[in-house]
Amino acid sequence: MYRNFKIVPNIIFGRGAFNQLDDILQTRRPGKDAYMVFVIDDVFTGKPLEGRLPLKGRDLLLRVNVDDEPKTSYIDALVAQIRAYHSETPAGIVGIGGGSAMDIAKAVSLMLNNPGSSADYQGWDLINNPAVYHVAVPTLAGTGAEISRTAILTGPVKKLGINSDYTLFDQILLDPELLAGVPKDQWFYTGMDCYIHDVESLAGTFINEFSKAYGEKSLELCRQVFLEDHPDKDDKLMMASYFGGMSIAYSQVGACHALSYGLSYVLGIHHGIGCCIAFDYLDEIYPAGVAEFRQMMARHDISLPRNLTRDLGQAAMEKMVTTALGLVPLWENCLGPDWAGIMTRERTMELYRRM
Amino acid sequence: MYRNFKIVPNIIFGRGAFNQLDDILQTRRPGKDAYMVFVIDDVFTGKPLEGRLPLKGRDLLLRVNVDDEPKTSYIDALVAQIRAYHSETPAGIVGIGGGSAMDIAKAVSLMLNNPGSSADYQGWDLINNPAVYHVAVPTLAGTGAEISRTAILTGPVKKLGINSDYTLFDQILLDPELLAGVPKDQWFYTGMDCYIHDVESLAGTFINEFSKAYGEKSLELCRQVFLEDHPDKDDKLMMASYFGGMSIAYSQVGACHALSYGLSYVLGIHHGIGCCIAFDYLDEIYPAGVAEFRQMMARHDISLPRNLTRDLGQAAMEKMVTTALGLVPLWENCLGPDWAGIMTRERTMELYRRM
Repeated sequence: MYRNFKIVPNIIFGRGAFNQLDDILQTRRPGKDAYMVFVIDDVFTGKPLEGRLPLKGRDLLLRVNVDDEPKTSYIDALVAQIRAYHSETPAGIVGIGGGSAMDIAKAVSLMLNNPGSSADYQGWDLINNPAVYHVAVPTLAGTGAEISRTAILTGPVKKLGINSDYTLFDQILLDPELLAGVPKDQWFYTGMDCYIHDVESLAGTFINEFSKAYGEKSLELCRQVFLEDHPDKDDKLMMASYFGGMSIAYSQVGACHALSYGLSYVLGIHHGIGCCIAFDYLDEIYPAGVAEFRQMMARHDISLPRNLTRDLGQAAMEKMVTTALGLVPLWENCLGPDWAGIMTRERTMELYRRM
Repeated sequence: MYRNFKIVPNIIFGRGAFNQLDDILQTRRPGKDAYMVFVIDDVFTGKPLEGRLPLKGRDLLLRVNVDDEPKTSYIDALVAQIRAYHSETPAGIVGIGGGSAMDIAKAVSLMLNNPGSSADYQGWDLINNPAVYHVAVPTLAGTGAEISRTAILTGPVKKLGINSDYTLFDQILLDPELLAGVPKDQWFYTGMDCYIHDVESLAGTFINEFSKAYGEKSLELCRQVFLEDHPDKDDKLMMASYFGGMSIAYSQVGACHALSYGLSYVLGIHHGIGCCIAFDYLDEIYPAGVAEFRQMMARHDISLPRNLTRDLGQAAMEKMVTTALGLVPLWENCLGPDWAGIMTRERTMELYRRM
């Protein structure tokens, strides 16, 4: 049985495409009372991008903070805020920012049409009602959040996405000009999320030709961006991210993403840098990928934080191991059906101890 | 201004995925009176594939003949046949076959919900009402018809597609096993439609990074299929076709496709072989592509028909030239805004005379 893969059905790509956001939203404003909610990373507060948002009438500007990765309690509070703002459901949600801002936009658009707490829906296909129309405007590239069917959230008992076809955006707007002001470290870590994702899925056991075609091209674009010089590197990185996301259709990530989840859950480390930290200790599993990753780090003068788990107690370490090993499909993809005998709790603990 | 590109929102890919067609259609059968129409190339009459169609209840099996490329009159007759079969509109149309069968499925699904003759809609965005739900099941790879927003038809006055977002399929089912029985010549010509398309769009002036990423990977897959040996070459060709189709978002084909349209319109030559015939005379425009194409022909022992226009009168020749040169965007993409001074009627005539 193959997955019948659902794809974001509308995409616009190009330098300056952000200027067409108004026209795109116009087709989704059913009447003069209809309003849009712009969910934007608060790093843009007072920045030119905020001034370029096509706000109209009763539209709501919702600045979100992503110093911590999004929590289910935060989503629930944002949804309550929108409901308090207006008795009618908004005509659309526009998420502007990196992976976390896009995850918030996805989760909010789902929860506006589904009762209860977002924590109730962490898992697979638990959502019953379609989301409010929602649009992705990434200002970082590499997470694949613009195309993925998950909104990754940290809940009271787990870090796990709301995975469903309804989670998918209705529209993606890819404007490479929006990548211009990203700080170098963030640019690198987010791009490596994509690179590592490609290495993991191409080396995995689940892959087929559909996902291979996307993953190989994504990897090639990452190499052009991080190991060569190209004037249109931002265009390439946006395409690498989109292709990386598409490649997940019939593939899965692997050991590095699993370990990164543990780092995030216990230490609150952001996903991109968490992937980089973990990948640097995975020579045995991905030798060629890790070697190339180190070339990329050297070329961009990146130094990773070290000794993160030095002061961590046994209970926290155990929780981290449990979180990582709980992601069964990732380990199956990486090491095959007998993965549990290969990646034991002891070996996982040892990897975390070195980080 | 960039095009807001609409994509087929559901795709299933895999060997044996055809066995899941029943499940996919089931979700679209609203009640026991609902019926599906299977539009299938009559080359499969009595063949095993026909026996594997998941026909239920009142479903209609509509065998279509594509010895000639689809005409608007043929579409109108098929629509009349479906209306005579049942007063209710079908719940879905499933197109099974090559580019022509898929074009018929697209056009029929549009015309069931739009009044008049299909000839009234040859052009761009003339369709007012959404189509009936329609599914593509390609049994040939290379046309890109599974993903394109056009249904190419030969009308009383022109060969021109019904181009609209509504033309797009709602679902693509890509099962590489379905390519197994294709005759070698047809396999080659249809694959070359994709290869030539990629060469034209990558060499064109309209390209951006979105279309380049798709086009380059499609070209690479074509090379693997036609110049190397791979056990999964059918999987690769299906992906090449899909990627080639996606690359059209922000690109356009060129001289070869334009000339092939003239051959089709006047001589009734099918599109794939028409592209091959024309491409072989385009060394001046696509030198590297034509050289590689000849390697592919040699490797697969293909001989093209020659002297096709030898007995053609002046009026027919003029009509062919007019058809080809009428495709302005293709020439602009190929030769830039001053194309008309470069590809004169005389030069076009001379090219056709040699074919």
